[in-house]
Amino acid sequence: MQAVTLIAKKRDKQALTKEELRFLVEGCVTGALPDYQTAAFLMAVRLNGMDAEETAAFTELLRDSGGQVDLSFTSLPKVDKHSTGGVGDTTTLILAPLLAACGVAVPKLSGRGLGHTGGTLDKLESLQGVQASVDAGRFAELVKTLGFAVCGQSSTLAPADGKLYALRDVTATVDSVPLMASSIMSKKLAIQADGMVLDIKVGSGALLSEADAMALAQEMVTLGKRFGRHTIAFLTDMSQPLGRFVGNALELYEAIRALRGELDLTEPLWQVTLALGEQMLRIAGLAHAADEARAKLLAALESKRPLLLFAQFLHALGGDPECCTTPDLLLTAKREVPVLAPEGGFVAAMNTASLGRAAMLLGAGRATKEDVIDPAVGFELHARLGDLVRPGDPLATFYVNSEAHLKEALELFTSAFTFSQTPVAPPKLIRTMLV
Amino acid sequence: MQAVTLIAKKRDKQALTKEELRFLVEGCVTGALPDYQTAAFLMAVRLNGMDAEETAAFTELLRDSGGQVDLSFTSLPKVDKHSTGGVGDTTTLILAPLLAACGVAVPKLSGRGLGHTGGTLDKLESLQGVQASVDAGRFAELVKTLGFAVCGQSSTLAPADGKLYALRDVTATVDSVPLMASSIMSKKLAIQADGMVLDIKVGSGALLSEADAMALAQEMVTLGKRFGRHTIAFLTDMSQPLGRFVGNALELYEAIRALRGELDLTEPLWQVTLALGEQMLRIAGLAHAADEARAKLLAALESKRPLLLFAQFLHALGGDPECCTTPDLLLTAKREVPVLAPEGGFVAAMNTASLGRAAMLLGAGRATKEDVIDPAVGFELHARLGDLVRPGDPLATFYVNSEAHLKEALELFTSAFTFSQTPVAPPKLIRTMLV
Repeated sequence: MQAVTLIAKKRDKQALTKEELRFLVEGCVTGALPDYQTAAFLMAVRLNGMDAEETAAFTELLRDSGGQVDLSFTSLPKVDKHSTGGVGDTTTLILAPLLAACGVAVPKLSGRGLGHTGGTLDKLESLQGVQASVDAGRFAELVKTLGFAVCGQSSTLAPADGKLYALRDVTATVDSVPLMASSIMSKKLAIQADGMVLDIKVGSGALLSEADAMALAQEMVTLGKRFGRHTIAFLTDMSQPLGRFVGNALELYEAIRALRGELDLTEPLWQVTLALGEQMLRIAGLAHAADEARAKLLAALESKRPLLLFAQFLHALGGDPECCTTPDLLLTAKREVPVLAPEGGFVAAMNTASLGRAAMLLGAGRATKEDVIDPAVGFELHARLGDLVRPGDPLATFYVNSEAHLKEALELFTSAFTFSQTPVAPPKLIRTMLV
Repeated sequence: MQAVTLIAKKRDKQALTKEELRFLVEGCVTGALPDYQTAAFLMAVRLNGMDAEETAAFTELLRDSGGQVDLSFTSLPKVDKHSTGGVGDTTTLILAPLLAACGVAVPKLSGRGLGHTGGTLDKLESLQGVQASVDAGRFAELVKTLGFAVCGQSSTLAPADGKLYALRDVTATVDSVPLMASSIMSKKLAIQADGMVLDIKVGSGALLSEADAMALAQEMVTLGKRFGRHTIAFLTDMSQPLGRFVGNALELYEAIRALRGELDLTEPLWQVTLALGEQMLRIAGLAHAADEARAKLLAALESKRPLLLFAQFLHALGGDPECCTTPDLLLTAKREVPVLAPEGGFVAAMNTASLGRAAMLLGAGRATKEDVIDPAVGFELHARLGDLVRPGDPLATFYVNSEAHLKEALELFTSAFTFSQTPVAPPKLIRTMLV
């Protein structure tokens, strides 16, 4: 078998066999396949796609390129969760302890933020002392003792995917549905679970177009069925930040306040969290109807047990859980700068990616993987889609530590808003659910 | 400027500006652009193409990545020639001294064979002592003293193209019309000339489909106009070997016999050579009509001056020109093996690529760049398209030095023929001429 022949097949829109894909994936892991051949193959896949058989075979090969996390020590139902990445989205931090408190184990690998989107690991590590990247043994131990783990990927899981992902990032081949689906699923399959809920973001802060989001949802549900993982995919709104807060410690603050019961249940963050949580409980077999599931989630929240589990989790990762008692400890930026509405009207649209980039300019995110983030900075959003604001009303409060890019961030932030003189309906939060 | 952004543009079918292409070509030469990004870019171009502006800009940038050959010392008209590669095609070896004898300087860079196609440099170097790769100074000197040079590319000409070509070969991106056109033209433009004749092969021994051949012809004529090089493109028949002989010393033998006047002018090899030569003379301004041009070519042949020039050329490259007096000196294979027709009928088709691969199996060609070729081996073809053969008639004579792959080569060779019980017209040699 020759790599150039296989690249030519994909270039000519032909499907590769599992043995041919194995040759490429193994070559990628051993280094026998040079990066330039991998890159040409990835671009051919990005432009010509893969069929269902190829995607499934590729997923399995990526999974089998490394070890697996054995969670057979627990008889609890195990349900995973994945999001394609958004702005101000802390559902994972709320869902994991909430579901664990309901008797569902949540073994969740998380990532870091890049570009305008946030990353769960960065939010956790905004608390001093926390080390959120762990090895497979430690990961399993956290699931055993707390009922959940939200941690960074160990390099022994799906190493072929790690190598491919690094290349995709620099060869403009990230946004390929079969490559995304196989990448996500290979890592999920490496960790024992009964099923998963997938949250695919759509709107001005999402990475995918709505058409690609739908294609990814379908591909993931199909792959889930094939591998015996009950997978439910949501398309949810990202036409504004999901929570009120954007920035690492600020988002940890908001998640803790939600777990403390201090965040209104009508807030979009709670609405999406509960919708995902309901389906996780159903996948776990602990509820039949959505109503029944919601009641269980709210009872668990009321018990404060999720908050306790989360505090224990932060402690286990090396952080001081005091912030669960006094969330204000997380608000450490040097100063707060109000951002005022340049004009009045109903908030008709936000370029949410620009809002994320404004937070990045303040220091909350990375433009390149080497950038160091400032955990304390970001913003609190006061105006949401559909709200009526007057000129000079506060749109947001910036949490600032450095003046370096402040002016640029303020301009980017205010110019991201569109106002209307007639009322505007807030967006529908749950666009689609695919079972 | 970021490479990944430019790759994404081409991935999304957008045209790149000259400055953007410059960033990529310069990065390729300096090494600032990693091979994997170049490879992803090449595959995006292979699948999404380049428009006329991009192709012209890319060609110019490739040319300007290295030095140029100055031929201003001669006031002779200078006409170049290029072929896309075929089987048994020695037109270059005949044309260069023939045109030089007519007062046209022919500064021609040639290549080596790969796969089933032959390479002019390998044919020249089949004569002991010949070193056909020279530097730019030596190349110019040959043009000055003999009126022609048919030599290997010095790495100082269009080095970016050299680097890209090596990557294209291993990433399945060779057969892209804009990449082929810019690659050929960048090297042609680096050598001063008034124009060129392009011979694009079509048929069972050609590298390109007929549609791609036509697209390449049009692209090359357009590029030629743009750069002030009078370019005439031919599509010529490669549905059987052009000459009677295939194999390096065997083809040198056939070219020398043609220059000696021992090859019938009705042979396809002469017919294509004369058609190309006529247009080279017209580009040079030394003839108006094709008839007039042909008369001049035949008068030059009659004078035996082309044979003398060719002998001097072989001598200049380090070879013994005795073979020009006694061509049989070139027939040095240990033994000759007749290949007999397995059935009778009119020869209806030949898989010419398979015939080339049969010669390769005997040792005449390279499967990979590292393979060493045997200059003496190959075959003489006795049956041509349209010929009536009886079972057991000789289809060819193999010139053999090793038994290693002989049986395999015989099988491949005979199974490449299709016979018909009704008469078959020989193929049209000149399919199209684009001016």
